[in-house]
Amino acid sequence: MYERLKGFRDFYPEEMSARRAVFDTVETTAARYGFREIGTPHLERTQMYVDKSGEEIVEELYAFEDKGGREISLTPELTPTVARMVVAKQQELSKPIKWVSTRPFWRYEQVQQGRFREFYQTNADIFGSTEPEADAEILAFAADALFDLGLTADDFEFRVSHRDILGGLLRSFDADVDVRDAIRAVDKSEKVEREEYLGLLTDAGLSYDQADEFATLIERGDLDEIAEFGGENVEAAVENLQNVLAAAEDFGAGDVCHVSLTTARGLDYYTGVVFECFDSTGEVSRAAFGGGRYDDLIESFGGQPTPAVGVGIGAAPLQLLCQRAGVWEEELTTDYYVLTVGDTRDVASRIARDLRASGNVVEVDVSDRSFGAQMSYADSINAASVVIVGERDLENGEVTIKDMESGDQTTAPVDDFPGDRGEPTYEDYE
Amino acid sequence: MYERLKGFRDFYPEEMSARRAVFDTVETTAARYGFREIGTPHLERTQMYVDKSGEEIVEELYAFEDKGGREISLTPELTPTVARMVVAKQQELSKPIKWVSTRPFWRYEQVQQGRFREFYQTNADIFGSTEPEADAEILAFAADALFDLGLTADDFEFRVSHRDILGGLLRSFDADVDVRDAIRAVDKSEKVEREEYLGLLTDAGLSYDQADEFATLIERGDLDEIAEFGGENVEAAVENLQNVLAAAEDFGAGDVCHVSLTTARGLDYYTGVVFECFDSTGEVSRAAFGGGRYDDLIESFGGQPTPAVGVGIGAAPLQLLCQRAGVWEEELTTDYYVLTVGDTRDVASRIARDLRASGNVVEVDVSDRSFGAQMSYADSINAASVVIVGERDLENGEVTIKDMESGDQTTAPVDDFPGDRGEPTYEDYE
Repeated sequence: MYERLKGFRDFYPEEMSARRAVFDTVETTAARYGFREIGTPHLERTQMYVDKSGEEIVEELYAFEDKGGREISLTPELTPTVARMVVAKQQELSKPIKWVSTRPFWRYEQVQQGRFREFYQTNADIFGSTEPEADAEILAFAADALFDLGLTADDFEFRVSHRDILGGLLRSFDADVDVRDAIRAVDKSEKVEREEYLGLLTDAGLSYDQADEFATLIERGDLDEIAEFGGENVEAAVENLQNVLAAAEDFGAGDVCHVSLTTARGLDYYTGVVFECFDSTGEVSRAAFGGGRYDDLIESFGGQPTPAVGVGIGAAPLQLLCQRAGVWEEELTTDYYVLTVGDTRDVASRIARDLRASGNVVEVDVSDRSFGAQMSYADSINAASVVIVGERDLENGEVTIKDMESGDQTTAPVDDFPGDRGEPTYEDYE
Repeated sequence: MYERLKGFRDFYPEEMSARRAVFDTVETTAARYGFREIGTPHLERTQMYVDKSGEEIVEELYAFEDKGGREISLTPELTPTVARMVVAKQQELSKPIKWVSTRPFWRYEQVQQGRFREFYQTNADIFGSTEPEADAEILAFAADALFDLGLTADDFEFRVSHRDILGGLLRSFDADVDVRDAIRAVDKSEKVEREEYLGLLTDAGLSYDQADEFATLIERGDLDEIAEFGGENVEAAVENLQNVLAAAEDFGAGDVCHVSLTTARGLDYYTGVVFECFDSTGEVSRAAFGGGRYDDLIESFGGQPTPAVGVGIGAAPLQLLCQRAGVWEEELTTDYYVLTVGDTRDVASRIARDLRASGNVVEVDVSDRSFGAQMSYADSINAASVVIVGERDLENGEVTIKDMESGDQTTAPVDDFPGDRGEPTYEDYE
């Protein structure tokens, strides 16, 4: 017996049906917003990730040399690939470019609850607009996807922040601050004790008092106070954040967006609004997903300056949120099982075909089994109805339809089954 | 600028939309037959492939050592993974097990027309039935998937063969035949000259006369003659093939199934009926896809003896067949573009949300663009209608709806737009 690799998962049909329903809902929502699906390679040159994230990223990658001597990696995230694709066709693509896709990614990291080495994400991005409406459309799409999954505004919240507010504030102190390190400290602030957090900020160049003042300012989150404290650059960033929130309000996501400047997002490449989605009840403590603006990436990939904003929705954390909210359904349904008794395959097959033609899920016997064994199987696949096609019934020109929930059954003329009924039931022939 | 890896593809939205439509159709057809979707890892231990296919397979694999010292490979095919999953839960799973999935696979091989290093396949398999109905259901599902794609019985044919007819015939000669090699020769027979083919058969142990006789017998394909020539084992195999074809006839795939004993399928693990799908016009010369019975694999993977039959439909060859038959459509459609003139975002957003709620694809301005620029963009995304929400119109309580094909436009009361119309058009308000 072979073993599955650690950190990888087999999805059997029940769990997969719930996952598929969630993927389909998120993709359908994205499609309604005009995001267009793309398909992307699952391997890329390792250098692309090193350039974007530094040499240390290789430790986390499934990186190797291929048989042609190329240094390649299983893609750990979508953004570099999408950036490459935008650059490759930047002349031809009409702006804004709005792309979506759902697929697996890989990172070699410690396996823990809700974290796997192979994980799935839906990414939606807009390229080519600096306007607050673009940020807001990402927020609105993400909120609508959750609404379409059955969640309500009471179930989740988007904590919205802005990199330039944080960066501008940090630069406004009379200190030599490593903004990148300081923002990473903010990103950790909710996971560590306050003293440790202030320690990280002082490591980044602030004095202890400055760190305390900065931390207090962003915890309080009073945007007017912050704009006044931070000066011109911070003012502009505050205005941008307010404009994004106003657009998100118009776009229907106002109720779930909350300013939270202690939200920073770990990744270095964000440049403007960033946000994370949290379970409102706090039962799921990790962020369900997040996103933000990254205006510099395309240029750093050799393209023309192209602003960008996006969101990456991980399937595993989203599953936790859906389960907490009670909208995760692992269920296999079957509309009809067409049961054969004796040599009735030709008629049973005709009925099965007719039922499938109306979109029903229909199974027939492929194992030459007894009446009882077929009935047990029909039960095991949650068949709503069983159509019994028996030799003796057929002599009378009849089949039997059985409602599996009530156990009621009745006969129906074989020539009128299913007739013009898309989903014939016991009641139709009773 | 970064380069994509050779043999890998970027799918931009137009091409992806056609691919998605095909995947969705095939999966919907599978669902109606009661195939249940599974999700599978994209990496497995290399040993699994070596055990199944021999040490030489490693040359074709993206195989490497992970950071934990495990010898792993990107999955080159689904079957071993599915076999592993069946074995892991063989007690719990009710039989027949009917699984389907669509996903990428990887092989490091020569890149040529229609062959890539990253390729996509839909696999559908039935485990747990030796009955001809199981083989026939695979054939019927595959045929129905093509019908649902818009192909007709004139567009394609399934060439159906049987490994035990070929094996039994080969063993009936007074010679020490390597059946595996001889079947591989049959698999190549249509791609090489007859003399070379006969040479391969003599390499496998037949005399030249025997090779000629064997080749002639299976080319002629007279099942009665073959059964008589081959004796008892061949008779049983012929009967099985006939039973499968009879069941396929009942299941609606009779018109497209043709006996073709020169079809052998290259892979060693097939044990019974095998088949390949070909373009009837011959324009696409390669098989579009194929499948067959492999009753021994699960046991060889450490499971209880479990018969199996399946089909693997490759996206690239299927695309060629669809293109040849004229049912491949690369098109992006948008139902509505909601255009804002002046400060009308709140109303425009409300309209966009209402239209999306009825399932429409709706885009709005996220780039703060002029009327003209918005109209060009609407054109570029093939918007069917543009809803113009202008400040002045709104003062009169109106919006304008423009049919983009005819250019006709008319006004509509903003309070009644879209009203209870799921897909409001110019005509509704004319």
